[in-house]
Amino acid sequence: MTPQEIVNTMMAKDYFSQWLGIEIIEIKEGSSKLKMTVRQEMLNGFGIAHGGITYSFADSALAFASNSHGQKAVSVETSISHTISLKADDVIIAEASEEYCSNKIGIYTIKIYKASDNSVVALFKGTVYRTSKVW
Amino acid sequence: MTPQEIVNTMMAKDYFSQWLGIEIIEIKEGSSKLKMTVRQEMLNGFGIAHGGITYSFADSALAFASNSHGQKAVSVETSISHTISLKADDVIIAEASEEYCSNKIGIYTIKIYKASDNSVVALFKGTVYRTSKVW
Amino acid sequence: MTPQEIVNTMMAKDYFSQWLGIEIIEIKEGSSKLKMTVRQEMLNGFGIAHGGITYSFADSALAFASNSHGQKAVSVETSISHTISLKADDVIIAEASEEYCSNKIGIYTIKIYKASDNSVVALFKGTVYRTSKVW
Amino acid sequence: MTPQEIVNTMMAKDYFSQWLGIEIIEIKEGSSKLKMTVRQEMLNGFGIAHGGITYSFADSALAFASNSHGQKAVSVETSISHTISLKADDVIIAEASEEYCSNKIGIYTIKIYKASDNSVVALFKGTVYRTSKVW
Repeated sequence: MTPQEIVNTMMAKDYFSQWLGIEIIEIKEGSSKLKMTVRQEMLNGFGIAHGGITYSFADSALAFASNSHGQKAVSVETSISHTISLKADDVIIAEASEEYCSNKIGIYTIKIYKASDNSVVALFKGTVYRTSKVW
Repeated sequence: MTPQEIVNTMMAKDYFSQWLGIEIIEIKEGSSKLKMTVRQEMLNGFGIAHGGITYSFADSALAFASNSHGQKAVSVETSISHTISLKADDVIIAEASEEYCSNKIGIYTIKIYKASDNSVVALFKGTVYRTSKVW
Repeated sequence: MTPQEIVNTMMAKDYFSQWLGIEIIEIKEGSSKLKMTVRQEMLNGFGIAHGGITYSFADSALAFASNSHGQKAVSVETSISHTISLKADDVIIAEASEEYCSNKIGIYTIKIYKASDNSVVALFKGTVYRTSKVW
Repeated sequence: MTPQEIVNTMMAKDYFSQWLGIEIIEIKEGSSKLKMTVRQEMLNGFGIAHGGITYSFADSALAFASNSHGQKAVSVETSISHTISLKADDVIIAEASEEYCSNKIGIYTIKIYKASDNSVVALFKGTVYRTSKVW
């Protein structure tokens, strides 16, 4: 399976990424680029996007990038810093890059930024365990 | 406002925590205990709960615990490790504990576990910046 | 080998832990308790203990706790928050607790506190990969 | 004070960075590039560089980059992933980049790599609180 086919297979059953309205812009071996729009039902008590929304968006980008090599990968540890707050209708982009990849471990950084002005809204780092199962 | 009143005010406008189906079990100064049930639309391409679901649940627990003192607090940096996977209908509990609290910075750990057997499904650590604004 | 024997074997060749002046207080399966004293040469440009000193102390506690089961373990991802600053001659204690342990992955939290008044100076979380090699 | 003067002032009293043998290659506003050589006394019980050595090296790079603007900054939360192990005599480079900088918060990523072949040995992310004190 090609990286794109793997991600299409994952996305077809990924109900939560579907709920988020994630669109796939580009998938390559070890990287992914995604797009989504913040909606009213994604806001928290401060009237801004809940931290879980940008985390979830980054976590999907991590899953797609780290599984794209063909070996099934599961998240071990992830961290995120939220910088600028988001409102309803903001369009955001997630870009995942592979920083390191061995037989067992992969490390990825994901940058989330606003499509309107490229300002960074969150920085995410994720470590995955690469299982021996293949797609 | 009491810790409970602050959280009720936050929750009333927190549309995403409402979507998650979060129930408040207990709120005290510096701590929170919440409950929710995993639904089909929260699953990912592996047929298990998306990592963003447990993160979001923990992030709400962090927001409630860190704002309960009366000073508005915003998340600066958070990390989560996912241990056991969750399926639809699993009921989970989040418990937030305050590890440190100064005038400017608060640090919290949140444990998420299954209600059925208390097995730990995620470990979360969150650091907040305590603003000078009050509830 | 018992947990104590494993850690003695590690410590005998652990030149940096020796330089730090680490004393082993207690080793059990999955946990460790260590002690050390901050020295002049461990300070940074602010006249307080360099962040690397408390990290290194916690990282040794992680290594001892995670290897104590008999299976060799290597650190995958670690994070630390520094709360209170330390001066020369401060005596500190590190306590490592196992939060989760599967065949492949172990997660530990380490609390560092001052021996004089038990005030928390750093909170550390570490994830290890448990190899198939044994001590 | 220029960024270089600030770092010279910090380094003059930073006894632990001196012990590590850190050499400053380049300092600019928001970034730093440092060099050091692993020594026998920096190794752990596995005969490789203790995780605290690369953390400490990255933490100094963070301190220099985040203080270079002229406002005193203190570390709030840091994380590191160790990838390739290091032996005595390995020469390593740390490069700190500013990912985000507001009035209160700064976020930096530090990459540590071997001078011999540019292979990445550690990835570090650090968040600082920018105080109102100036150099």
